[in-house]
Amino acid sequence: MATRKHNFNPGPAALPLTVLETAQRNLVDHEGLGLSLLEMSHRSKEFEAILDHAKRTIAELYGLPDTHDVLFLQGGASLQFAMVPLNLGAGGAYVNTGEWSTRALKEAQTLHGRAYEVWTSEPAKFTRVPRPDEKLAVPADATYLHYTTNNTIFGTQFHSVPETDKPLVADMSSDFLSRPIDFTKIALAYAGAQKNAGPSGVTIVVGRKDLLHAFHGAATVPVILRYATHGKQNSLYHTPPTFGIYLCGLVAEWVKAQGGLAAMHERNVEKANAIYGVIDERADLYRGHAEPDSRSLMNVTFRMASEAQEQAFLEQAKKRGLLGLKGHRSVGGLRASIYNAVPKAAVDALVDLMRSFG
Amino acid sequence: MATRKHNFNPGPAALPLTVLETAQRNLVDHEGLGLSLLEMSHRSKEFEAILDHAKRTIAELYGLPDTHDVLFLQGGASLQFAMVPLNLGAGGAYVNTGEWSTRALKEAQTLHGRAYEVWTSEPAKFTRVPRPDEKLAVPADATYLHYTTNNTIFGTQFHSVPETDKPLVADMSSDFLSRPIDFTKIALAYAGAQKNAGPSGVTIVVGRKDLLHAFHGAATVPVILRYATHGKQNSLYHTPPTFGIYLCGLVAEWVKAQGGLAAMHERNVEKANAIYGVIDERADLYRGHAEPDSRSLMNVTFRMASEAQEQAFLEQAKKRGLLGLKGHRSVGGLRASIYNAVPKAAVDALVDLMRSFG
Repeated sequence: MATRKHNFNPGPAALPLTVLETAQRNLVDHEGLGLSLLEMSHRSKEFEAILDHAKRTIAELYGLPDTHDVLFLQGGASLQFAMVPLNLGAGGAYVNTGEWSTRALKEAQTLHGRAYEVWTSEPAKFTRVPRPDEKLAVPADATYLHYTTNNTIFGTQFHSVPETDKPLVADMSSDFLSRPIDFTKIALAYAGAQKNAGPSGVTIVVGRKDLLHAFHGAATVPVILRYATHGKQNSLYHTPPTFGIYLCGLVAEWVKAQGGLAAMHERNVEKANAIYGVIDERADLYRGHAEPDSRSLMNVTFRMASEAQEQAFLEQAKKRGLLGLKGHRSVGGLRASIYNAVPKAAVDALVDLMRSFG
Repeated sequence: MATRKHNFNPGPAALPLTVLETAQRNLVDHEGLGLSLLEMSHRSKEFEAILDHAKRTIAELYGLPDTHDVLFLQGGASLQFAMVPLNLGAGGAYVNTGEWSTRALKEAQTLHGRAYEVWTSEPAKFTRVPRPDEKLAVPADATYLHYTTNNTIFGTQFHSVPETDKPLVADMSSDFLSRPIDFTKIALAYAGAQKNAGPSGVTIVVGRKDLLHAFHGAATVPVILRYATHGKQNSLYHTPPTFGIYLCGLVAEWVKAQGGLAAMHERNVEKANAIYGVIDERADLYRGHAEPDSRSLMNVTFRMASEAQEQAFLEQAKKRGLLGLKGHRSVGGLRASIYNAVPKAAVDALVDLMRSFG
């Protein structure tokens, strides 16, 4: 086996090595059953136990209230951009903090015409999210308030839950399972699993049972796009992505073994601070994209003096086995995605390079 | 490792052992790259090569004309039940040959009101599909004709492509990659991969480029549900189910190594004939559900004299390592799903049991 690289990919992203090893051991013959999980019916008692385990472990990690349920769907956050307004109705209010918020807003507008942009940092190149005391212009008739907890591309993150009297909907794709959050404040959250929670191809939805088990939308909404269709059948209305759900369960179990979400958050703070520390110390070399109050613990975005210098940095990084550091084209420069499964050792290797570069 | 079971699961279903072994070998460290494919960006050149390989191999197996393209989506056939009418418009005509056809029809009716049932064998418990010479009552203003090539639950299958002057749409979920088909006759086909083509969580769409690369539907259709969104970006509009697509590519490669679709079909005929042979020989014990002309090469459905006898059969089967033979609740009895990757040896073991039973 080759040396394992330091993986800073933005998603699909690093997974815990023990999770990969467990999946590998079981890939041909799942737990001695004589067939692979990939070959097993989603109606089998074995898969039902896997589904139940993944669901229970996520609920346990968040200390989920009884009012909430967990679903495993397909189609990524992008399908949720449509499912949210299809299920919650026209007139959603959107906090626009980056590309994914913009896409969510546009999908709601495509569908219903009526959807509100109630705050945006677009003129400032999405360098920040609203401050906790900043007023969002939510209209009285808005049906819900939607926000993106972490902005992968721009490297910004909400560090508190917005206060609102509307049902709060959160796209948690890039920080799901990375820190504790009070779900009594959240009506509906969704996450493509491929950052902190598992592989691509699984979408985790956590939300209030009154939204997930009963349908309140228009009669013309396709049955497959109603949360209630999936909620009433425990994510087994149709064939789910069985292997992906298994991996999500293994990842959730790993998070639990690391001490749970509070411990995970502490490690994530430590990792992020190490990189932001060098950015601040070496302001001659690095310039962070995000405003300090809005800095993401998941995606650290920064520029250097020139593209040539950034290119040289990426080449040195590659030589040292550091992968996935190129920034998204809309920001340019560099981005270190340091999700749960990126070990401190990888961050140390990056910090070493940043300190010694030039 | 435990002895490998004889796997007759209806889906997710048996996969070729060599495919599982290749996936296992690469699971932690993909081809010596120092990370798992599960951790690799879908924008990496490595994944783009995997996507391209899967696509090219499927196109090659079918001898796909230049007019057609292959997409990898999510959401299974169930999401296609909605995407087809969202993209092709109201007024689809549906041949109703079983539960999945019924669901496809109902989804089109939910969405648009207007959708036609132009043939059904429901009164006869879906024991057959239309004969090639049988007239389908397709209205002049129908926008497309939809049929289900193989009916997993009832064990029936079309053995020729229906003649029509409408764009023909085919749900090929349960016989995709199992036999040659002339795609010049097919406007759009889709398949959940989890029968013959790969794991659950990947939907393969093969269709005319004018339908997959340009959008002709209503302006209110969510962007994510337009084929053109995916077609114009080579299935990379959003994060695809990367690991599933990799497995589909390995399976397609395996089909090619078996001699391609004609050879695969020949083996499938041989396997199915072996089981139907015993059903016909032992009419005292077994009663096939499907009418002989409509018999499926993929799912052999049959009943015995009593439920107690069927239960006894299932128990003996289990003792011999034969799994997944219980029929679907709507038909009852027994069902042997004998997709591409179910080896002749498994069929022989089933035939042995059927002959010696009692």
